[in-house]
Amino acid sequence: MGCGLGASPIEDLAAFHLIFGKTVPDVSLNAVANLGYGEGRFLAPVWPGDTLRSESEVIGLKQNSNGKTGVVWVRTQGFNQHGAAVLEYCRWVMVKKRDEAAPAPETVVPALAESVAPDALTIPEGLDFSRYDFALAGEPHRAADYSLGEIIDHVDGVTVSQAEHMMATRLWQNTAKVHFDATARPDGRRLIYGGHVISMARALSFNGLANAQMIVAINAGAHANPCFADDTICAWSEVLDKAETAAPGVSAMRLRLVATRGHQAAGALRGDDGKYLPDVLLDLDYWALMPS
Amino acid sequence: MGCGLGASPIEDLAAFHLIFGKTVPDVSLNAVANLGYGEGRFLAPVWPGDTLRSESEVIGLKQNSNGKTGVVWVRTQGFNQHGAAVLEYCRWVMVKKRDEAAPAPETVVPALAESVAPDALTIPEGLDFSRYDFALAGEPHRAADYSLGEIIDHVDGVTVSQAEHMMATRLWQNTAKVHFDATARPDGRRLIYGGHVISMARALSFNGLANAQMIVAINAGAHANPCFADDTICAWSEVLDKAETAAPGVSAMRLRLVATRGHQAAGALRGDDGKYLPDVLLDLDYWALMPS
Amino acid sequence: MGCGLGASPIEDLAAFHLIFGKTVPDVSLNAVANLGYGEGRFLAPVWPGDTLRSESEVIGLKQNSNGKTGVVWVRTQGFNQHGAAVLEYCRWVMVKKRDEAAPAPETVVPALAESVAPDALTIPEGLDFSRYDFALAGEPHRAADYSLGEIIDHVDGVTVSQAEHMMATRLWQNTAKVHFDATARPDGRRLIYGGHVISMARALSFNGLANAQMIVAINAGAHANPCFADDTICAWSEVLDKAETAAPGVSAMRLRLVATRGHQAAGALRGDDGKYLPDVLLDLDYWALMPS
Repeated sequence: MGCGLGASPIEDLAAFHLIFGKTVPDVSLNAVANLGYGEGRFLAPVWPGDTLRSESEVIGLKQNSNGKTGVVWVRTQGFNQHGAAVLEYCRWVMVKKRDEAAPAPETVVPALAESVAPDALTIPEGLDFSRYDFALAGEPHRAADYSLGEIIDHVDGVTVSQAEHMMATRLWQNTAKVHFDATARPDGRRLIYGGHVISMARALSFNGLANAQMIVAINAGAHANPCFADDTICAWSEVLDKAETAAPGVSAMRLRLVATRGHQAAGALRGDDGKYLPDVLLDLDYWALMPS
Repeated sequence: MGCGLGASPIEDLAAFHLIFGKTVPDVSLNAVANLGYGEGRFLAPVWPGDTLRSESEVIGLKQNSNGKTGVVWVRTQGFNQHGAAVLEYCRWVMVKKRDEAAPAPETVVPALAESVAPDALTIPEGLDFSRYDFALAGEPHRAADYSLGEIIDHVDGVTVSQAEHMMATRLWQNTAKVHFDATARPDGRRLIYGGHVISMARALSFNGLANAQMIVAINAGAHANPCFADDTICAWSEVLDKAETAAPGVSAMRLRLVATRGHQAAGALRGDDGKYLPDVLLDLDYWALMPS
Repeated sequence: MGCGLGASPIEDLAAFHLIFGKTVPDVSLNAVANLGYGEGRFLAPVWPGDTLRSESEVIGLKQNSNGKTGVVWVRTQGFNQHGAAVLEYCRWVMVKKRDEAAPAPETVVPALAESVAPDALTIPEGLDFSRYDFALAGEPHRAADYSLGEIIDHVDGVTVSQAEHMMATRLWQNTAKVHFDATARPDGRRLIYGGHVISMARALSFNGLANAQMIVAINAGAHANPCFADDTICAWSEVLDKAETAAPGVSAMRLRLVATRGHQAAGALRGDDGKYLPDVLLDLDYWALMPS
């Protein structure tokens, strides 16, 4: 890339999905729903050939009022084969209570930051966009070209199919039953793996954010509504913030990436009741690095 | 793996499928049905980069009473690029008679062993489970933990799709028409490749048999009923036998692996009439190696 | 292969599809239809690890009588990382007029050769079929065994699925919307990528043309009718011409490869009205190299 990195790191979300996948057997194999993400920081590039592993710590617990389910918060760290942390993030999931008759556990709701502060972003060592080749990149837009609050309609759409999302899900070693076993949900439908929606939306977002090169933080994220085969995934983005970094020519862009079912009006996120609109699939708030 | 092998061999069933696939043009391109397997022995590990080829010998022949079809028994050997046999097995298939008016050939039904004797199992050179890392493996169960006759429900299920099984079928270079051409069968349905069912069931079986590391023999096998897209493959196992081997810490486990359509009662195999139940897809009797 | 090449080049159509794919954003992202190919010449082998790029020149332009669409002819060249041209071809596509009120551009219809002359074929340096191993190839047929006008029914069929063609389309980096977005066409159907049909038909054609080793020219080509998921692709070929080359033991065969929807009578191409029959998907006229 001529960006000072020496080699091409593994795509950030691929690393995220893989580290996430390794947590599924311990955290969410039978989860009812994956509710949200926060405090996600990419700490070091992952290189082809690296071997990753995950460790998770339960940091919060809250029984739901129905007495049958509850929310579990975990903080996960991903490590490479040298023992270096490459990623950390929190997520919370709804799970069934093993013994409904058991007393409710003490409620612990962790205080998570609304977003990762710009000075807490880890910029890959050596990264340098000062000689970024916009002609080779194919698109001229740099951080300075975007304004706060700007909404970008990514225009394209991709219709998803069972076989594709199941293969993506296997690739990232995510074994949650609802993705593979049509008999696991009462409606007999396989849930499209949320990571597939995230990566599809991110891929669509390059049409408009072509030079948003690396994801360095996930501030917040929610799978707003379930996605099923034959849905057409579309996406729009909103520019939430911008910040300079210490690396030459490298700006950080805080972006909201929204995936929708079908082509929807860019910018429409919630209804009057404050709830996500029914065709919003994903609301992801992240920091990416871009040439200044 | 720290198991004394120096490198990770190709997964046993991958080698089996590939060697099987290379026999299809000669044996079963137009076969009506693949009836059974027996006397299968894995003779040497297959390594990444190896080139495999197959040789088959017709060892039996029997015209069916309808005069239109018959059964052909073949013994196949798979060789690597050094000319070393890596696998041998028998299978029998139902094929159409080329000329129905021709006299029936002499009936030759080969006498196949009911199972491979434990002392005929080939243990990969250097294999040593005496320092097997159960923590790294993720599951603590060893051969001693299983009892003869024990039934293991593998719990999970995977719904199969056309695109996935066709890709698996191509990967193993199996070209039988019924898997690819929806017009090849009177019912207009593509038959799910049997090797896909075998490997899916084997994959499911690791939930309960996590340390059943290598398959060293296929004693017997039958594709009991056809599998189609949108079927959900589930599996259960029965412990048929156990044996010690000469390798340190290595036991052989004789297991019956049964794949079913949908979640069925583990252990239910045949009806009162002695026939396979209609939702049994696969009945595979094999030897695997496991830490003692 | 023992064919004098030193290594196995990337399959010719894979290189074609990739170079084609890189032209889509500039030429046919929103195209109504991809109408035809001509003057295609493979100029140098593509090797594993090569990096390819494409350059296209508009060579023709014609507004349709409806005033809303028009035909654009482009000549594309594909280059490897050393700057050497590896492929050139022309294609013409129907696109929408940006401003229907604008005056029609001057009509320029390029004069394209009906076929590539045999002496204009580029034979890969070192290619030598004089010691071609027919036993290893698995089929004995050489150029001398085929007669002009001979029709070959390739017998097999492959039913196509959404997931497979979308993955093939991504693999070749073809981003045209009609392949991915079910909402992009009024009928709500995803169009099967034409390159998938070409490669499927070429693959089927090895049953009958097993030793037609390399494609060196595309004389003409048309996607006669659209292909959709669940169609079964079948193929037949016609021997159009034969020529000697300067390379030892290497003949050139000019072949017409026709893909059909379902099993159709081999040789049936056009109706009495001169138009392609409704189940003809592809009509491809190409030169391949074969042992003499």
